[in-house]
This record gives sequence, C-alpha cells and structure tokens, in this order.
Amino acid sequence: MLMNYPNGKQKRDRKIVTTANRGMNLEKMINQTNEFYRNNDIAIIHKKPIPIQIVNVDYKQRSAAKIVEAYYKLPSTTDYNGIYQSRYIDFEAKETKNKTSFPIKNIHEHQVHHLEQCAKHGGIAFIIIYFSSLDRLFFLDQKYVSQYYQRSKNARKSITLKEIEKHGYEIIEGYRKPVDYLKVVDTYYLNQDAQ
Amino acid sequence: MLMNYPNGKQKRDRKIVTTANRGMNLEKMINQTNEFYRNNDIAIIHKKPIPIQIVNVDYKQRSAAKIVEAYYKLPSTTDYNGIYQSRYIDFEAKETKNKTSFPIKNIHEHQVHHLEQCAKHGGIAFIIIYFSSLDRLFFLDQKYVSQYYQRSKNARKSITLKEIEKHGYEIIEGYRKPVDYLKVVDTYYLNQDAQ
Repeated sequence: MLMNYPNGKQKRDRKIVTTANRGMNLEKMINQTNEFYRNNDIAIIHKKPIPIQIVNVDYKQRSAAKIVEAYYKLPSTTDYNGIYQSRYIDFEAKETKNKTSFPIKNIHEHQVHHLEQCAKHGGIAFIIIYFSSLDRLFFLDQKYVSQYYQRSKNARKSITLKEIEKHGYEIIEGYRKPVDYLKVVDTYYLNQDAQ
Repeated sequence: MLMNYPNGKQKRDRKIVTTANRGMNLEKMINQTNEFYRNNDIAIIHKKPIPIQIVNVDYKQRSAAKIVEAYYKLPSTTDYNGIYQSRYIDFEAKETKNKTSFPIKNIHEHQVHHLEQCAKHGGIAFIIIYFSSLDRLFFLDQKYVSQYYQRSKNARKSITLKEIEKHGYEIIEGYRKPVDYLKVVDTYYLNQDAQ
C-alpha cells in the first residue's frame, strides 16, 4: 500500500498498514536510526528494555530458565537515552492516530518529571511525537511537554498540532535514518550543521 | 551477623548473609545510592530493566496481561546510566566471591565495547567491582577494563586485586550512600570535592 504524502509524492518508507504494527513501526524506525548512529560512530543511544515484574521462573529445563509468570510494569523513566557529542540525550517516543492534536495522557507524569530532571542536570530531553495518520514526526523539547502537562490539569488535555508546529521541530527523514532527530539537536541545541 | 572489617571495625551495612542474596544486595546498595542521588537532586541515574524476550502473553485475565513465556536475553549494554553534572555516566556492577582477583568472564565482550564507545563519545564509563568476601568495592575506569579484557584473550583471565588497587579507586560508603561512586567521579574526573 502506498500513502499519499502531503506534498503529493508517494512514500514507501513510513507506510503503516495495520493499527497493530504502528507502535512497533515507530519503535523500529527509531531503533534503525539509533543503529545507524552507532554503526557510524555518531552517537551511542539505545532503547531500554521493557520493565517487567518477574513472578515465577521455571528452571527445570536445562537449556534456559523460562519465565512463566511476569507482568508489565509502569516505566519509571523514558524509553531512550544515551550520549551524543558529550551530551546526555533522553527522550520518549509516542504516536497518535489523531490528526489535530496529541493527547497528553500518552505521557506518564513520572516521565514528564524525569525529562525535567534530565534537562535540569544538563541533558537534552525531549519527546518525539508521530502523527501516524499524517505521517509527520516532531521533536518537542521537555520544557513544552512540562508546560502542556501542567495545562492539562486544568484545561485542555492535549497539545494541538498547531502548538507542536510552533514550538517543536519537524523531524525529516535522513538517508538510512528514518527518524533523524539528532539533526534537530545539531541545529537547535549544538548550533552545528548536520553530520 | 556481623563481619570483621579489614580495619578491625565491625560493619553492619554491607553484611551479606547468603550467597543467593549477594547479587541482589549489590544491586540494592547501588539502587539505594542512586535513589539518594535522585532525591537530593545530585544526579539522575537509573538501573535499566532486565532484557527479556517475551514469547507468549495471556490477555484472558481482565486485570492485567500476564506474560506466560519469556526468556532472559543477553544485555546489549550495561546496567546503569544517567547524567551527573552535565556528564553522561555509564557503568556495570559485578561482584565476586574471590579474594585475590576478578574473573574477566563476568563482563561480556559487548559490554566492554559499549563502555569504550561511551567514553569515546565523552561519557564517564567504568565498572564497579564488589569483592563480597572482603567487603571491598572498587571503581575501575573502562580503559583498564578494555586493557585487561584484551589481555584475557592470550594471558590471564582475571584482573588481580593488586591491579585493581593500583588502577582503580576504592569506593567508600557515604552517609545514606552505600556505594558512593560519584565521590570518585568528583575527585578523579571532575576535580571537585564531594557534594
């Protein structure tokens, strides 16, 4: 399936076929980008494992311990972190099918807090928002995430696309870098041209 | 149970009772230290979740998805990372019951490589070694980890305690900081006195 792209071109790389694959695909795109960064010695950024509460493990089989009862835990931090140009990088990636806003409930309060803390200690902290129906990706600094998170307690529960367009940076796909977020870091945080 | 400490004093905090608890206890000591750092706004450093390959999940129960088949995966990075004084921090923690050397096989090759990469990109990367029988804790920079890892391919398969004493730094227990490794970072990497 090919999707029509806003500018009229057809785009294969980011096509999403089923709802079930969407989360996986954003993750895949970011993992592929991080792999490119690592293989080309640009940055060392990894996805953290999913936090699991292990309840019961079967050691009977000789080959490998088999976990037979475990549950997903709420993550206490964000999904991605690492180092780029001596700077600590920390971010969370989320997507929405919405076309006009990003629901704040997609981000947990402790993640907002974690991003704030990282920035406070000198890191570059942000979220990546993927509007899958629009196939548009944005980089939004943690300070706006905090600001809109606070607003969501008393007013609207989402960040509008317009607000994201205003305060965020659109992430452009790079060659073998489907989510080239470090280009944004270069331009707006390190004041350099891209690698 | 109280253990005799090298200097003759008795020490309660780091006592280890059974072999089964040892790994957990080093982890616990580090987690407690990291919690202290976070709560006192000193550093944001977390343990990563254990990497798990999830094979089968039971969604039948309404309350929570239950993972019914999963396996431990080899970690591709280290256990701990985060930010301190704008610097990226990355380390692995290991312990041994040995009294005179640390077996290199406790560290995976890709972890040695990962620590090298982190240092190369400007991070502070090291391992923490706990000699549980001696109740002594050391901080060893990744450059020595790499060096002894290379040596282990052709010569001795361990780092002697003497070598660790020479090239590493002993970690002293701080008040409510059982493994106060940032004190070493302050003194030898940032040239500052402790917090």
